[in-house]
Amino acid sequence: MPQPFTELETPVPVVDLDRLARNLDRAAAYATEHRLDLRPHVKTHKSPRIASAQLRRGAVGLTCATPHEAEVMSAVCDDILVAYPPVGEARAKRLVGLPESVKLTVALDSAAAVEQIAAVARESDRPVSVYVELDLGMHRVGFPNVDDAIALARSIREQAPLEFEGIAFYPGHVRAAVDQQSSQLEQLSAALHTAIEAFERAGLRPNVVSGGSTPTLWHTHELFGVTEFRPGTYVYNDRTTAAIGACAWEDCALTVLATVVSTAVPNQAVIDAGTKSLGREPMRGTDAADGFGSLLEHPEVIVKSVSEEHGMLDLSSTTWRPRVGDMVRVIPNHVCIVVHLNDVVVGLRGEAVETSWPVAARGR
Amino acid sequence: MPQPFTELETPVPVVDLDRLARNLDRAAAYATEHRLDLRPHVKTHKSPRIASAQLRRGAVGLTCATPHEAEVMSAVCDDILVAYPPVGEARAKRLVGLPESVKLTVALDSAAAVEQIAAVARESDRPVSVYVELDLGMHRVGFPNVDDAIALARSIREQAPLEFEGIAFYPGHVRAAVDQQSSQLEQLSAALHTAIEAFERAGLRPNVVSGGSTPTLWHTHELFGVTEFRPGTYVYNDRTTAAIGACAWEDCALTVLATVVSTAVPNQAVIDAGTKSLGREPMRGTDAADGFGSLLEHPEVIVKSVSEEHGMLDLSSTTWRPRVGDMVRVIPNHVCIVVHLNDVVVGLRGEAVETSWPVAARGR
Repeated sequence: MPQPFTELETPVPVVDLDRLARNLDRAAAYATEHRLDLRPHVKTHKSPRIASAQLRRGAVGLTCATPHEAEVMSAVCDDILVAYPPVGEARAKRLVGLPESVKLTVALDSAAAVEQIAAVARESDRPVSVYVELDLGMHRVGFPNVDDAIALARSIREQAPLEFEGIAFYPGHVRAAVDQQSSQLEQLSAALHTAIEAFERAGLRPNVVSGGSTPTLWHTHELFGVTEFRPGTYVYNDRTTAAIGACAWEDCALTVLATVVSTAVPNQAVIDAGTKSLGREPMRGTDAADGFGSLLEHPEVIVKSVSEEHGMLDLSSTTWRPRVGDMVRVIPNHVCIVVHLNDVVVGLRGEAVETSWPVAARGR
Repeated sequence: MPQPFTELETPVPVVDLDRLARNLDRAAAYATEHRLDLRPHVKTHKSPRIASAQLRRGAVGLTCATPHEAEVMSAVCDDILVAYPPVGEARAKRLVGLPESVKLTVALDSAAAVEQIAAVARESDRPVSVYVELDLGMHRVGFPNVDDAIALARSIREQAPLEFEGIAFYPGHVRAAVDQQSSQLEQLSAALHTAIEAFERAGLRPNVVSGGSTPTLWHTHELFGVTEFRPGTYVYNDRTTAAIGACAWEDCALTVLATVVSTAVPNQAVIDAGTKSLGREPMRGTDAADGFGSLLEHPEVIVKSVSEEHGMLDLSSTTWRPRVGDMVRVIPNHVCIVVHLNDVVVGLRGEAVETSWPVAARGR
């Protein structure tokens, strides 16, 4: 007899396995339809099991941010992009130390990073492919100026065993509702067009143009020249993804199962999921009054505030009145942080506990 | 030859061991001076090593929030308060399952919690002391109404092997600068006076009156009737604690060591400490423009925004210009979250790596 999820100890992240499979299938079908290479970012799940499910569905490889993520994923994948500047000797050495069977690509935006990874790669004569990172509006990393990016790409060609492979960008600034993204996407596409042509004129035609996020996932094919996209969040989705219309509420696969531990203060109920299991992530592009998550079964009830081990449910706009001991499931604002805060994720089939898996690539 | 901290792989939390010892000494001396029982909250360090250092300095016991914290700490301490409602069968069973040598106390605010812990305690005939939680302004958990608290205390006396031991409160709403807390502390003290007298009139004199936080730490002796205080953050302190004057900047013992990984975008430098190692905690009582931490050596430089693995340093109001590969140390807004995000903390003596220890009580 299967264990019902209501017997689990809380707080704990639980995944609806049917929703997860549907999310994986949908993105894989989109990639096939538009002949785009899907290279999912593992930051969201940090699990070789889910990475394998992505690869079985046709993903060309994986995207990682940290050396530990790359090491863990090298057990199941032989084509890994570390979309993070390989700066710091320890980081560069760990990356170059990945199994030789793994094709390693890094994304970077400085001469210092090129020199560091080149020096370490030369020691072991290991080929490392490089994407030069462009800033196309996110203003986080990447060259705002294409000429600077071209100059760096040129220098990479002189630094064997590095190989200039292409350009990368992250459209993290596009966070408008999906049906209101068109002007931002047009700007992005135009900027890509300009950049790619400049690279071609310089004799540095990029083999790969790598970009894309979950909010822009379903519009990736509209971006000029993009060959590869790297969404992460789409496996689980979250309240923010649903709010901007990049998934439906019913596509949110991961919830935090929590127990009501106090109703002593009027108009609120306190659950045992706080900052240390749910995070303190705002809804992007909306205000703090939106809280830190809302209930799967009562979307009108938000987690209005959090402390380390407490989440305060606002009951002022609902007739629902939970009792101490009741369980609820919270859809978090930002699922990647929830996963990182936990060591184990439980998989549900309907209401039954079917499996669980470690968040193997959390930690450092 | 000792390893300099600049050889560490980043991001990593590092602790100045001299500052840590000074912080531990200062709180212990305060407790002795005012004849208060110090029962530190382990949520900040989650480390049996630091808990032992607190106990050696005279702490009467420890405060925990989760069953896992209590289990880990039971190896070094035989007097544990779980300042969290023991709701949920799994939680109640784990608590009652602590070694018999441990005196277990729980804090709670509902008849449901009393019944649950009583039922489990009866099965193994294990004594459990109980604090009844009052809401004295924090509006998180606890009875706003003293008569309700008294009624629950009375019911506890009829539920052997539970024992009514005292009352608890958490003054988490007192976050003003230390020199501007006096009116809030006077209100708090008056409310305590009223509550304690009401308990005494009901024939339920509390043996223990347990309260206190790091922001109010040095004023605990001014609160009527308080016998025990439970600060956590004081071991490491953080940017918020310094901002409200409950410690000096030089008392911040834990920093996140990070590497500059990109300077491509003008007027900013990007470090490898983001939400997943530094957290996304606001400065309490101040606005979002204050960022998520500031640099130990350049306090005017703030982490203005964070994404999962990136922290954006605002260079607009400094002449300091870091280069890619430089290391910085960030004083976080809220140190408890930083510790919880990491598996290992490194201890420094000056600039030398002296030791490291696991965050043994993180996870569930």
